Amino acid sequence: MANVAVLGYGTVGSGVVEVLERNKERILESAGERINVKYILDLRDFPGDPFEDRVIHDFNRILEDSEIEVVCEVMGGTGAAYQFTRQALEAGKSVCTSNKELVAKHGTELLALAAGKHCNYMFEASVGGGIPLIRNIHNSYTAERILAVTGILNGTTNYILSRMEKEHADYHEALKQAQELGYAERNPEADVEGHDTCRKAAILSALMTGREVDAEEIYTEGISGIQQQDFDFACGSGMTIRLLAVSRILEDGRLSAVVAPFMVPREHPLASVGDVFNGVLITGNMLGDTLFYGRGAGKLPTASAVAADVIDCVRNRGRSVMAGWGSGKAEIADIAENERHFFVRTSAEDAERVRKAFQGEKEGASEGSFLDGEFGFFTPVMKEKDFQERCRELGDAIKSRIRLI
Amino acid sequence: MANVAVLGYGTVGSGVVEVLERNKERILESAGERINVKYILDLRDFPGDPFEDRVIHDFNRILEDSEIEVVCEVMGGTGAAYQFTRQALEAGKSVCTSNKELVAKHGTELLALAAGKHCNYMFEASVGGGIPLIRNIHNSYTAERILAVTGILNGTTNYILSRMEKEHADYHEALKQAQELGYAERNPEADVEGHDTCRKAAILSALMTGREVDAEEIYTEGISGIQQQDFDFACGSGMTIRLLAVSRILEDGRLSAVVAPFMVPREHPLASVGDVFNGVLITGNMLGDTLFYGRGAGKLPTASAVAADVIDCVRNRGRSVMAGWGSGKAEIADIAENERHFFVRTSAEDAERVRKAFQGEKEGASEGSFLDGEFGFFTPVMKEKDFQERCRELGDAIKSRIRLI
Repeated sequence: MANVAVLGYGTVGSGVVEVLERNKERILESAGERINVKYILDLRDFPGDPFEDRVIHDFNRILEDSEIEVVCEVMGGTGAAYQFTRQALEAGKSVCTSNKELVAKHGTELLALAAGKHCNYMFEASVGGGIPLIRNIHNSYTAERILAVTGILNGTTNYILSRMEKEHADYHEALKQAQELGYAERNPEADVEGHDTCRKAAILSALMTGREVDAEEIYTEGISGIQQQDFDFACGSGMTIRLLAVSRILEDGRLSAVVAPFMVPREHPLASVGDVFNGVLITGNMLGDTLFYGRGAGKLPTASAVAADVIDCVRNRGRSVMAGWGSGKAEIADIAENERHFFVRTSAEDAERVRKAFQGEKEGASEGSFLDGEFGFFTPVMKEKDFQERCRELGDAIKSRIRLI
Repeated sequence: MANVAVLGYGTVGSGVVEVLERNKERILESAGERINVKYILDLRDFPGDPFEDRVIHDFNRILEDSEIEVVCEVMGGTGAAYQFTRQALEAGKSVCTSNKELVAKHGTELLALAAGKHCNYMFEASVGGGIPLIRNIHNSYTAERILAVTGILNGTTNYILSRMEKEHADYHEALKQAQELGYAERNPEADVEGHDTCRKAAILSALMTGREVDAEEIYTEGISGIQQQDFDFACGSGMTIRLLAVSRILEDGRLSAVVAPFMVPREHPLASVGDVFNGVLITGNMLGDTLFYGRGAGKLPTASAVAADVIDCVRNRGRSVMAGWGSGKAEIADIAENERHFFVRTSAEDAERVRKAFQGEKEGASEGSFLDGEFGFFTPVMKEKDFQERCRELGDAIKSRIRLI
């Protein structure tokens, strides 16, 4: 029997306990032994809860109990969660987490600490919820050089964009709907400004490159500037709009990483990932593209991923199997050199002037189309820096600009 | 360094050698040591081939060489491939294969043999080509009870159906196109009659239930009866047609498994899996649905999956990690009890009579529609046996019938 402690009895924590309990026969089969929740650490008491006798308030009891092999850190944040994770790993206890913020910020150090102590720091649930992404990169793409990871990694923003697309809701209406349904927080900034996606992109990029990737170095734009008119033009061009994390290895070995709303052609595999779903396209040098698509959040899917990590730790007792990434830092290319098409929206009056400003680049611009007194078109392929400079010159004439994948 | 032998230097075999060579630095990182192709077994010689010095003709040299740890069986068939696999496993050498026929037929015995010898029999490449399905079921769904697996598992038939849909090609034209492009064999029966899909369904069903599943007990229908008119009606109803393997665990624990063409609503995740791609939807009791989508065949994707198995064997030297399934047999429910809607196509003259014959069931039939002198509609939810009986009574009046997913 393997004893585990769960840190934090909130949504994910109670989900982990529920999954371990409800699927205990299946888990016994997978792990080869029973997995027992010996402690649940929380500040609160839970009178009447079926597991109330496991609830404790002092982390040292977990640390000092040699029977505890695995700790599930599902508290969130980078304060106590960081301290507890360090202490558990130093004591040789494996840690499984859904805490993307902590993984993005201190993953390098915690992975090295785990490796030195022959235990594991696992974080499948930190990216893509229940979609097995990290385990796949680690266990399935072992004979592949991963060239790119392109993903919809945030369910909240994908829900908002899907509502704007399907119901012609404006951004604020769609956000309000998401909040009412519990998909978005009252302060939605971390989601809608792309910070959550950016952290997940940093984790996936680090796994792809084998090096540390600083989330703060990833160029990040959110969706709060997307308007219904953008969707009208997207729709007319056979496209939709998605908040994507786009990471790829450049020919010189540097990493290109950007988080931003993108125009996505309808036939692109990520275009059909709607509502709160997540989808990730992994491009390998032998395999080509593989898409993984499923629930990127939610109590039970996230908890199931944490539980799978716990089982992996138990199966690999005494072995550090989670390679993760090393301590070297990935070199991130400046976004200014990226080349792509851009969608530009302007007023009908400015149409000719604005379109002309983007002519004469490598590949021709699209014809463009007029809609409700506005004009939208795609620029030729051009460098970010040239595009931004042109936009600056045109000033207010540019009503919106969205990259094309 | 780990030494491996490749049995069969055909398409997949030469792909395995190519992947191990081209990605050797990446593989060194993943496996923790170099992987060296010491022998290539083939009946032929390959003068001028960069690996001609590794080519041998006598399997015993591999068997008797204690340096060989892993054998890649990529010959196909169930004759010599079966004998060589048995002998290698008995000698304690792990075997990795893309041979779905052999896995479906002798997997139970070979898995048990490997377990007894503390080595592994791995077959990631046997289902879904480069899409990591088997490793996911085995390593990622460890805390899940898998309730159902629904998949497009054959690229050839998916290509044919996609051509019929997009180019209004008839079945024979589309098949000919597939043959010209090398997607279909000259004798396409194994693909178009569903046998290939059925073997893969048996492997996935065995992994899902943990018990042996006899492919011959799975009800199987191919696509050779699908006509352009079926696509016209499908299109008019917002649907497409896909050859699916549908396996699910019934409430009483029995397995329901069927391979057949299905009408699939446009918004279903599998509807957008087109051309030669494969897609598999795994339904877990906590995770809900996750879709995996990618190249189900092809030299390098398949070879990459075999190479990933080789790395797994090297990483787990001396440990049998591939649980697979036990020796008990899964009980397969008779398809006659399955309940679903069916699409029925008849002539305009027979419309009223045929439609009436399916009325009065649990849930109302669809209105139906007329198209080019024919009438198509969906029946209410009904049992297979009742549906088939009604069809028998109506005889030639039924021009086609397709299950609805």
